[in-house]
Amino acid sequence: MNVTSPFTDDSLSLHTDLYQINMAYTYWKDGIHERKSVFDLFFRKMPFENGYAVFAGLERAVDYLKDLQFTDSDIDYLRSIGEYEEGFLQYLKKLTFTGNLRSMKEGEVVFGNEPLVRVEAPLIEAQLIETALLNIINFQTLIATKAARIKTVCGDDIVMEFGTRRAQEMDAAIWGTRAAYIAGFDATSNVRAGKLFGIPPAGTHAHAMVQAYRDEYTAFRKYAESHKNCVFLVDTYDTLKSGVPNAIQVAKEMGDRIHFAGIRLDSGDLAYLSKEARKQLDAAGFYNTKIVASNDLDEYTILNLKAQDAKIDTWGIGTKVITAFDQPALGAVYKLVSIENEHGEMEDTIKISGNPEKVSTPGKKSVYRIISRASGKSEGDYIVLEEEKPYEQEKIKMFHPVHTYISKFVTNFEARDLHEDIFVKGELVYQFPELDDMRQYLNSSLELLWDEYKRILNPEAYPVDLSEKCWNNKMELIQEVKEKTEKRLK
Amino acid sequence: MNVTSPFTDDSLSLHTDLYQINMAYTYWKDGIHERKSVFDLFFRKMPFENGYAVFAGLERAVDYLKDLQFTDSDIDYLRSIGEYEEGFLQYLKKLTFTGNLRSMKEGEVVFGNEPLVRVEAPLIEAQLIETALLNIINFQTLIATKAARIKTVCGDDIVMEFGTRRAQEMDAAIWGTRAAYIAGFDATSNVRAGKLFGIPPAGTHAHAMVQAYRDEYTAFRKYAESHKNCVFLVDTYDTLKSGVPNAIQVAKEMGDRIHFAGIRLDSGDLAYLSKEARKQLDAAGFYNTKIVASNDLDEYTILNLKAQDAKIDTWGIGTKVITAFDQPALGAVYKLVSIENEHGEMEDTIKISGNPEKVSTPGKKSVYRIISRASGKSEGDYIVLEEEKPYEQEKIKMFHPVHTYISKFVTNFEARDLHEDIFVKGELVYQFPELDDMRQYLNSSLELLWDEYKRILNPEAYPVDLSEKCWNNKMELIQEVKEKTEKRLK
Repeated sequence: MNVTSPFTDDSLSLHTDLYQINMAYTYWKDGIHERKSVFDLFFRKMPFENGYAVFAGLERAVDYLKDLQFTDSDIDYLRSIGEYEEGFLQYLKKLTFTGNLRSMKEGEVVFGNEPLVRVEAPLIEAQLIETALLNIINFQTLIATKAARIKTVCGDDIVMEFGTRRAQEMDAAIWGTRAAYIAGFDATSNVRAGKLFGIPPAGTHAHAMVQAYRDEYTAFRKYAESHKNCVFLVDTYDTLKSGVPNAIQVAKEMGDRIHFAGIRLDSGDLAYLSKEARKQLDAAGFYNTKIVASNDLDEYTILNLKAQDAKIDTWGIGTKVITAFDQPALGAVYKLVSIENEHGEMEDTIKISGNPEKVSTPGKKSVYRIISRASGKSEGDYIVLEEEKPYEQEKIKMFHPVHTYISKFVTNFEARDLHEDIFVKGELVYQFPELDDMRQYLNSSLELLWDEYKRILNPEAYPVDLSEKCWNNKMELIQEVKEKTEKRLK
Repeated sequence: MNVTSPFTDDSLSLHTDLYQINMAYTYWKDGIHERKSVFDLFFRKMPFENGYAVFAGLERAVDYLKDLQFTDSDIDYLRSIGEYEEGFLQYLKKLTFTGNLRSMKEGEVVFGNEPLVRVEAPLIEAQLIETALLNIINFQTLIATKAARIKTVCGDDIVMEFGTRRAQEMDAAIWGTRAAYIAGFDATSNVRAGKLFGIPPAGTHAHAMVQAYRDEYTAFRKYAESHKNCVFLVDTYDTLKSGVPNAIQVAKEMGDRIHFAGIRLDSGDLAYLSKEARKQLDAAGFYNTKIVASNDLDEYTILNLKAQDAKIDTWGIGTKVITAFDQPALGAVYKLVSIENEHGEMEDTIKISGNPEKVSTPGKKSVYRIISRASGKSEGDYIVLEEEKPYEQEKIKMFHPVHTYISKFVTNFEARDLHEDIFVKGELVYQFPELDDMRQYLNSSLELLWDEYKRILNPEAYPVDLSEKCWNNKMELIQEVKEKTEKRLK
């Protein structure tokens, strides 16, 4: 990397906010840096007002944690800031991740206000990793959720991710297309993502090739002479008068030497053009030649095109999925929920806010999915303090954590722990599944949801409830903080 | 990188769309892959409906081009696709960028429909690099433009980029903050960006530190005992009843041992809280202690807060700048404008579209900024065919490329060539300025614009005109394509 700084390597360990380093320094100076702490990573609002989100990004986060180690140049840079004692820098130099981490699986269907990742580690470590964990998981979970919405409206049609040129830099292109693949996309245009992740790469040619030959027929013919599988882009000059007829002519001339897999429409009225192109293809006997559409598509335009009975078989999605255009950030946060005190005991802790939804839920918690044995469908997610064992209970009371009168008793259920052990005392104990298994897992996870949670517009709100113990613990801490603040004012 | 593929390295040379490889293969099979070609990189619509955009990303693009070289594992991966002859793979193995590249400077004020980057290279090279160039330049130009809008409303206030946790993966965080710095932001929270680019890093502590001490006063006190410069985050429990009073108490106790630089507000009604906090600080004699605000801010909320006379001195901007939230993609494209024919002559080429604004402008072109010697202000940008020399002309006619009746004659002007030579025959000939010089350059570039182009709402449209020669060339090519299409139909 050619950069203007004197620090020549580039490690990801400094991919954190300066305030993490400054807090770490205070903890170290005060000798509390190795106190045990528990942090929850969660988001509050469902992205795109979707009924669920798709968790993704864990594997990348794990790689970051495995490699966490400040390089010499990282330490030199921190020293150059001139704020920190040498002892602290030497401490950082030896720091690695030694904690426990439990997490949702990639491809899991997840919801607001439930811990997606739970970190239990010495305070200094847990604090330093916050920024990168959020950066990684916010993005892939956002894109997987957007991609799942698009996949929902596409049904069994093939969907390809074509967005690299509009992605927010290179990492977003490759990790975004990985997330889209987990969520059900079938292919990527990005060759590097194909190489790194084994996602099937897709794409044939651009307008430039037609221009390079200065003649559409010649361009298609040359492409057909060099490729068995042909999808011709037909809108460089005039789709119906020139593009489709040239494609058909070349396909007829080439006969069995090519597989005339499709034509691609990239501009104009896709509903009209696809219907007319379908007629031309059928009239020429190319019934199995597919029509691929691209051009700023998302779940809304696709739904609309389908409502117009557009004859489109395959979808190329770019900007709208790779940037999550209508909501380009997921707001996951990372909150301290429990901390060791001076006596070596864990104390739960809370962050209050003027905004009631922003008050965090204290305590070291687990999340269970409560699945009715009668219907095979989920009754909701159930957040408990870790020592609780809902899987041993006959009956549980589930109630809304704000509107507590909304409640139900559930019996005859399976309580499925949604967290997996990923790191135990700094050791990676989790074996990552293949991407294709994550796709499959998402499907099985979606099968547990009633359809009402899965529609793309105005879905029902899925219950994410606290156990009574967990809820009481929260209320007590709110009360405690209030009393303390009032005492201060006296 | 821990990935599921058998290809263990990760080079950026495959960071391209598969169709580029497939076109390259057709060109190579047909023997036209080394024909000279000229491509323009440009966007059509102004992002955020702003009056100008800020060009950024060139240095990263140049690094990519310098390093362009397929690795053995890249070639192995392409071989595994099973589409390409070995001779082609061996050709790719030796490929580097051998062309010419001219470009706007980073920090330049740029507009729609003018070539930001012009690539002149063997067809196969120019084609392969399209995806990465667009990926890099679209993103940094987008973020620099968004940041410039925010900087416009902040005036001389300090503005800090705080968005890493919400950025679209890691590259976006660091290259985005670089772009924001070029556009006038003063600092970044991202330590890695501080290290790599020399951007001043900023940040003190989070809510977690207050929670870790389970007492706000203690937390502030411990921070003050370990840091000279203190900005206390005052909204963990209650801003006015607890946060600000605790900050003041600690500052009084610590006296000269700290610099009580500021307090930070991160939630609630920032207008009200800042005014009340200012009163408390002033009453305690801390007139120079600044008030920093963060929490989903952008140019609109800042303008609004200023209109309410909020007492905010310093702005921390996250999500809204690092994702360009209201328009998270710039639509720059890369179009073939001239190509060598079978006789070794260059022929201009055009892409037609049903959408008139999408018709490309053919020919190898230059862009001049026409600066009135009388006013010192720009009259507009003037796109010419390369052989034209507007700087030798006494008088030029500038007219709107679509509404051609809008025209003016300009005399007594300086015609400033906006493109710099970056690569000449594959050699990097450009010396990159420091980031601080790019910031400075943007200021001087903005001084050439009348204020009407710089307001954030409904700015005037800046003229980007074609020379008559360039315009005529385009019209002739449109006519030629139309005739060809009609001939085909007969």
